[in-house]
Amino acid sequence: MGIRLGENNYGKEKVRLLRVARQEGRHDIKELTLGIRFEGDFESAHTAGDNRKILPTDTMKNTVYALARKFPIESIETFCLQLTEHFLSNNPQALKVTVEASEKLWTRVPFGGKPHPHTFMSGGSEHRTAMVRAGRKEQFVQAGVRELLVLKTSKSAFNDFLKDSYTTLKEDKNRILSTSIRAEWVYGTGDVDYAATWHAVRQILLESFADHDSQSLQHTLYAMGEAVLTNFEGIREIRLSLPNKHYTLVDLSRLGLDNPGEIFLPTDEPHGLIEATIQKD
Amino acid sequence: MGIRLGENNYGKEKVRLLRVARQEGRHDIKELTLGIRFEGDFESAHTAGDNRKILPTDTMKNTVYALARKFPIESIETFCLQLTEHFLSNNPQALKVTVEASEKLWTRVPFGGKPHPHTFMSGGSEHRTAMVRAGRKEQFVQAGVRELLVLKTSKSAFNDFLKDSYTTLKEDKNRILSTSIRAEWVYGTGDVDYAATWHAVRQILLESFADHDSQSLQHTLYAMGEAVLTNFEGIREIRLSLPNKHYTLVDLSRLGLDNPGEIFLPTDEPHGLIEATIQKD
Amino acid sequence: MGIRLGENNYGKEKVRLLRVARQEGRHDIKELTLGIRFEGDFESAHTAGDNRKILPTDTMKNTVYALARKFPIESIETFCLQLTEHFLSNNPQALKVTVEASEKLWTRVPFGGKPHPHTFMSGGSEHRTAMVRAGRKEQFVQAGVRELLVLKTSKSAFNDFLKDSYTTLKEDKNRILSTSIRAEWVYGTGDVDYAATWHAVRQILLESFADHDSQSLQHTLYAMGEAVLTNFEGIREIRLSLPNKHYTLVDLSRLGLDNPGEIFLPTDEPHGLIEATIQKD
Amino acid sequence: MGIRLGENNYGKEKVRLLRVARQEGRHDIKELTLGIRFEGDFESAHTAGDNRKILPTDTMKNTVYALARKFPIESIETFCLQLTEHFLSNNPQALKVTVEASEKLWTRVPFGGKPHPHTFMSGGSEHRTAMVRAGRKEQFVQAGVRELLVLKTSKSAFNDFLKDSYTTLKEDKNRILSTSIRAEWVYGTGDVDYAATWHAVRQILLESFADHDSQSLQHTLYAMGEAVLTNFEGIREIRLSLPNKHYTLVDLSRLGLDNPGEIFLPTDEPHGLIEATIQKD
Repeated sequence: MGIRLGENNYGKEKVRLLRVARQEGRHDIKELTLGIRFEGDFESAHTAGDNRKILPTDTMKNTVYALARKFPIESIETFCLQLTEHFLSNNPQALKVTVEASEKLWTRVPFGGKPHPHTFMSGGSEHRTAMVRAGRKEQFVQAGVRELLVLKTSKSAFNDFLKDSYTTLKEDKNRILSTSIRAEWVYGTGDVDYAATWHAVRQILLESFADHDSQSLQHTLYAMGEAVLTNFEGIREIRLSLPNKHYTLVDLSRLGLDNPGEIFLPTDEPHGLIEATIQKD
Repeated sequence: MGIRLGENNYGKEKVRLLRVARQEGRHDIKELTLGIRFEGDFESAHTAGDNRKILPTDTMKNTVYALARKFPIESIETFCLQLTEHFLSNNPQALKVTVEASEKLWTRVPFGGKPHPHTFMSGGSEHRTAMVRAGRKEQFVQAGVRELLVLKTSKSAFNDFLKDSYTTLKEDKNRILSTSIRAEWVYGTGDVDYAATWHAVRQILLESFADHDSQSLQHTLYAMGEAVLTNFEGIREIRLSLPNKHYTLVDLSRLGLDNPGEIFLPTDEPHGLIEATIQKD
Repeated sequence: MGIRLGENNYGKEKVRLLRVARQEGRHDIKELTLGIRFEGDFESAHTAGDNRKILPTDTMKNTVYALARKFPIESIETFCLQLTEHFLSNNPQALKVTVEASEKLWTRVPFGGKPHPHTFMSGGSEHRTAMVRAGRKEQFVQAGVRELLVLKTSKSAFNDFLKDSYTTLKEDKNRILSTSIRAEWVYGTGDVDYAATWHAVRQILLESFADHDSQSLQHTLYAMGEAVLTNFEGIREIRLSLPNKHYTLVDLSRLGLDNPGEIFLPTDEPHGLIEATIQKD
Repeated sequence: MGIRLGENNYGKEKVRLLRVARQEGRHDIKELTLGIRFEGDFESAHTAGDNRKILPTDTMKNTVYALARKFPIESIETFCLQLTEHFLSNNPQALKVTVEASEKLWTRVPFGGKPHPHTFMSGGSEHRTAMVRAGRKEQFVQAGVRELLVLKTSKSAFNDFLKDSYTTLKEDKNRILSTSIRAEWVYGTGDVDYAATWHAVRQILLESFADHDSQSLQHTLYAMGEAVLTNFEGIREIRLSLPNKHYTLVDLSRLGLDNPGEIFLPTDEPHGLIEATIQKD
């Protein structure tokens, strides 16, 4: 029985950069973390230690810095496309190249009531993401958001669920609902204004989470995905991965107190996890 | 030679709670993590296994939930004071009680251009903090902020520094300056509007960071502390702990490119750390 | 154009437990973290808020504790199989059930030169893992290891690689090679002694990493996978995901010193990442 | 009312290095993370932006690498002493210099039943630590251990404790006791074999934790500290900081099962924290 190399890839992870655009009277910044992966004809490197088709991952990193200098990085989607095109043009041994980008969100410090021209503060743990996976004939462009943490104190229930002999959970008509939104959506083939679309999708995710009369996190997930697909012709599918961040009503009866939906215990583990792709036919 | 118990304390860490205040048409939330420490007459517990003076840390946790139900938690400073007072009143064996609180910052989700009445999004990794350390005759009230991450792309230099035979750093008249502000300030004995003061101190820290013509992070730290002390009569000292989060200009010359202050490498380690207390005489 | 639910799953993550087996004169412990996922007929929950086919994730958690009490947990692979069987037997609406387990490794504290009967110390960040994915007709059993961190100071080179105009990396005949082994292997259909096999596979991974005359991390990855497949008839494929944890020789020449392979800078980011599946034909 | 600079310090954190000692047939490695802090005459830097007394933190980092090349790093305590001596000799503006070191513990990979000569595996999250704080007339040498995680399933009770109206905890004659040992001990003025002492202190901490008939974590903490002081003449005090990592017996009665000390829920938060210094008179 023979042994052979199956699916494989290699690349560089966590390539970080800050790009400063210095206009008269106003600076703009973008802070990115990138990952690059090559798939292709790399069997001899594995089986024979022959590195002649292996572009060093250090070179992948250098290429990120060189292209960041050459291009303005209007959006991370565009920059991922520029990187995949460069790598595919220069590396016939690579059949598929994947570039992922994660953008840290900086906002301007308010100064005397106005946004400061060159001082920024962190927008928190939320990140804007993009991923391009491309071969010589096709490319796949995905955008997304991670760690967009939300919580609602009303319009969330979980009732009439399936029960078995190990079920102890009580029905709840008014629970806290909290999740950290991870969403990734796939663009179709037409032209897209990536920056404007990203901000608009994010806003629709937030509004549909807020407004939905939730019967479960599955129910809200679907409503969020449906709202995005309905509003954006250029998006053909969206995947949502939503942890159910439990806030449990604290039982104060043993302390001689009632607790009318007021004091909750936030817990990180265990947590529910609901994942689904919503698609256009 | 004898062996004896020196300084000692015990308590509960990471007591978490969410408090929901439900008004008609609008909910407010506070999410806190608390820590409690007792110091006092606990020698026999250590040396003889005698627990008769040991209030369980589990009871400390329960007390947090009970008092969170009884009091409105107008500010974390007030809640820390209420907890220390409760513990000191009920526990003669405790000579000093310290309560620390950290508040996660939630903001309202914008919905149709207006803040949503019951849906919130995370304000990021920044936390508002408070600490009360109290005995029966005195108390010490401290407020603060942690992980307030800022970055400026102008008005920051580091020149004319001391050099020795291992110095390779070049002078820099226009470097990126970034730090994660950790500040703790101490209130005097008068009445304080804790919430209003916290927001005003935070704004002054941000504005003085932004506006300062920095010769070093020490220089900016002092300017930030001085601005707080000058503007708030009720604050008698402030301690700032500022990591110097280095962004290094990437050398693109080997890639055949120049880099006129445009592409930087963000690094987490190593990092500088500048700490100082600024005081009123 | 219609909108529809695509791939979806839901479940509970980070269900933790410690199981103590108390024999006369000797206790044994297992500390596990489990994740459970259901796939099946859950469309109406998403589209209509109908929870009648939704077993709460809280019940999944309870089931873990109940089965941990009923079964001895001889190995995590067996326990994952027991859980998938329970869920599939009791939930016709679930078509596929996946259970993942991660075991924290505890070792006995040495006491007077012998292993202590009831006191343990952590074996570090390394974890033993298992995953069972099962439907009513088939099941897939996978075992693995994560965060098995290794480093070698000899027999590692990286030469004769592909160069382009952005390549600045130098050839290196004697570099440090370090990685954090993540391996997952798939068992065939025969009977397996899961515990004995896991320990033996781990040992072969370590020995083949140590002994290999490495021309690249790809080269060593393949050698490690091949060694496992050659030695274990019951394993049909293995996937390895190996970060290249770079240790860079520090340039001391500007400090007036040489550095003959002695002082290195460990870095966490960026890092290379090499991934491949090695299979039997 | 004037404003003035109080306590202040600056330095470099997270300076990392790997040092390889290459003997014929056997390599040895040490992986360290260091932190350096200067206190002294730095007022003009803060108040006037005058950097002439500021040695850059980048130079502190370079000095670590230079001295790591010049000295063999027999123990981290010795290396911290060498660094403080260097900095004090060359920097009259520094009145106190503090150097902290943390050593990652690597062990040799077992290969054919014997330790491999040049391949290592991680000893886990446990770290050996040292700290030297020195002025021109005195120095303070401290050694320690962090994240030495231990657990015992017998000989641990918590009874007869103080109760108030919020106490719900039950007495427990046979609970799980687990902690992550953080210990720091201070050496006297005589000569010390730092490496041998460190290993011996660690072993005594483990054995006294294992063997103690614990009435509380305070009780065990004291026994551990007393054992160290009794056995080592050269150690004048030890500080222990012990989180009480709770493992709660899972209530299985609602699932129709008993739980005779078998299934526990490990939790990370909240947790108790017990801290004390044990001293020689």
